[in-house]
Amino acid sequence: MSFLQEFAELSAIGATPGGGVERQAGTAADGEARRWLVQRLTAAGLAVDVDAVGNVFGRAELVPGAPHVLVGSHLDSQPRAGRFDGAYGVLAAVHAARHVLAEVAAGRLRPRFNLAVVDWFNEEGSRFQPSLMGSGAYTGALQVEQVLAARDLEGTSVAQALEGIGFRGSAEPPAAVAYAELHIEQGRALERLGADVGLVEGGWAARKLEVVVHGVQGHTGATAMADRHDALATAARLVCLARDLVDEFPDGALLTAVGRMTVLPNSPVVVAREVRLSLDVRSADPDLLERAHALLLERFAAAAERGAVEVEVVRSSLRPAARLPAAGVDLAEVVAKEAGASTHRMLTMAGHDAIALDALVPTVLLFVPSVEGVSHDERELTRDEDLERGVDVLARLLARLVAGDLG
Amino acid sequence: MSFLQEFAELSAIGATPGGGVERQAGTAADGEARRWLVQRLTAAGLAVDVDAVGNVFGRAELVPGAPHVLVGSHLDSQPRAGRFDGAYGVLAAVHAARHVLAEVAAGRLRPRFNLAVVDWFNEEGSRFQPSLMGSGAYTGALQVEQVLAARDLEGTSVAQALEGIGFRGSAEPPAAVAYAELHIEQGRALERLGADVGLVEGGWAARKLEVVVHGVQGHTGATAMADRHDALATAARLVCLARDLVDEFPDGALLTAVGRMTVLPNSPVVVAREVRLSLDVRSADPDLLERAHALLLERFAAAAERGAVEVEVVRSSLRPAARLPAAGVDLAEVVAKEAGASTHRMLTMAGHDAIALDALVPTVLLFVPSVEGVSHDERELTRDEDLERGVDVLARLLARLVAGDLG
Repeated sequence: MSFLQEFAELSAIGATPGGGVERQAGTAADGEARRWLVQRLTAAGLAVDVDAVGNVFGRAELVPGAPHVLVGSHLDSQPRAGRFDGAYGVLAAVHAARHVLAEVAAGRLRPRFNLAVVDWFNEEGSRFQPSLMGSGAYTGALQVEQVLAARDLEGTSVAQALEGIGFRGSAEPPAAVAYAELHIEQGRALERLGADVGLVEGGWAARKLEVVVHGVQGHTGATAMADRHDALATAARLVCLARDLVDEFPDGALLTAVGRMTVLPNSPVVVAREVRLSLDVRSADPDLLERAHALLLERFAAAAERGAVEVEVVRSSLRPAARLPAAGVDLAEVVAKEAGASTHRMLTMAGHDAIALDALVPTVLLFVPSVEGVSHDERELTRDEDLERGVDVLARLLARLVAGDLG
Repeated sequence: MSFLQEFAELSAIGATPGGGVERQAGTAADGEARRWLVQRLTAAGLAVDVDAVGNVFGRAELVPGAPHVLVGSHLDSQPRAGRFDGAYGVLAAVHAARHVLAEVAAGRLRPRFNLAVVDWFNEEGSRFQPSLMGSGAYTGALQVEQVLAARDLEGTSVAQALEGIGFRGSAEPPAAVAYAELHIEQGRALERLGADVGLVEGGWAARKLEVVVHGVQGHTGATAMADRHDALATAARLVCLARDLVDEFPDGALLTAVGRMTVLPNSPVVVAREVRLSLDVRSADPDLLERAHALLLERFAAAAERGAVEVEVVRSSLRPAARLPAAGVDLAEVVAKEAGASTHRMLTMAGHDAIALDALVPTVLLFVPSVEGVSHDERELTRDEDLERGVDVLARLLARLVAGDLG
């Protein structure tokens, strides 16, 4: 089956009416997509393993005892999301692996390393936090016990969710020597420049905060404004402060967003006692990010005082700016040129499993264009020719990595 | 059993760890409280009926064919609420009815009307909107079909919820000639003045709006600020606009609050596509309320433009300022004096079933003090002596109403 045919099949799993998918981590749709993947891996002659945090590996033993070149991405999605984010990279990895196995079988490629296709568990972090969960556990950035104990808003743990879909494994994951990932850009740079493939040199720094505003319940109709401790009124100020901070920095230098907010008790006639919000602050410049972060905390404290509530930062994590190895970028440029693809060197604003993996092994991250830069939405689109070109480049890159051309 | 003993029994149903109750309309706890009430009504010799929207009536036929003096309040509560709001008035009505029946039986009271204790369905409006649902259906302000079709955030309809707890009835409700209700103040006026009983002369006007902000999903880490249509960023501005508007009016003249906000898809890394919020605007002065409302709509439109989103007011209702009949206030003052209670004439900022009933029949609304004015919270408190004094005043008032002393 052609890549596009197979991708259409995968996209039918958890399909939404607007042309997207909803396959949040550990849900039934995620489980179905994973079973579909296992069939594809097995059919390609790969041996399938699942590790303790639900990462799925399809391994080929080409050089007994040698470490593995990992290639993959993630099948999980955001709610009502696009069908390309993550899933494209996983299926592209299956096709790239088939190509390499065929090359080895035909005697045209002499492997130095083994290879394994991987579907990382919960890259998105929409249902369970933090994001980059499976890849983070693989590199040791996250503890397995901590990952398994994380709970969604309904109180279901990762351990329960993985058991529920039959993907709580116990296999020792394969040792890696390098990692490659192909992903959609999720921005507009490649489209604007007319470039075919993005060569990712590094990633923006990001701070993720979980903030709880503690107020006191009251009657919206009978409590004087002066007597209120309204958690939602102050939470709204925090959202505005975060949004407006962006305008104090050079255009495009800082991104902020609050994507999630939960209100208790969330009744139309009750002053809220507690609001929890997830704040995302990003910059390519780590110093600017820290300045912005410090300003926000200062202003949050002032807003708390003004609103007669308590503002508590219950979780704060920093994803440092990343720099991927230049040798990998250079190698990717070479194979892209061989494939006739134009390239553009760039940074990624979004987080990726590749950024997590880079802490452990040399990593290469490739992008293909996203129409209008839309992502995390059903309208997400990458054109067929760009999809196929990306698979071709990844296959060539994987062959070089398996041959030992990087590091 | 004494009033306080019975009230402790009722307060144990749906009790929360912090000394409150959670018995939202149509939930299992509401059903349990209603079954408890039915036993009490039956034991008092009242005939129990349930109407099509779940209002519970306990009737005494004292004068065959005569209309009824209704007396009661509501057993439903807000989430994690106090134990007095509503429930106090229902149990007080049971005690007042017992008193009147005993007076009639002893030949000390000659009834002109019948009486019925009532538990109105869903006064609170936390789970199902609008509030004042049972009393609104009784007066004809709401249509029965519309009430039964209202759905909570999980999609359960009122009809389903009432069936679930066994309180979807079909009885014709009793015809009313007058209505009396005893309630906690939920404010600080009586406490500040040291008055025992509040005589409610009327109610504030209120506007309730349901507003939907329509945005577009996007990636919080990869979508440039200029390309966003962030529903939550603008919704937060609306909350701030509503809060800050209060400061443009004389102190205490205007109240605003947003108590509920739901965010879609509510993922930490997705720009929100839709936010729905419930806005509550109140004033004793109807003209001031309309000026405030017009200003808000104007500013909401500007915020929508600034945020590149659409702001839609999907529901807007006006509860006009109410004036309860002076004859009822005077009568209540007389019986309060007989009971040795000091009184204070006042307005209610909060809505009550009594305000709904006043559209149909002469209505008397009495308040007892709330410690520190706290309400819609577990800390809600009215002292035992105030509770008992209120029951005494209500019993005396009910006797006079049944004797035909009002209208």
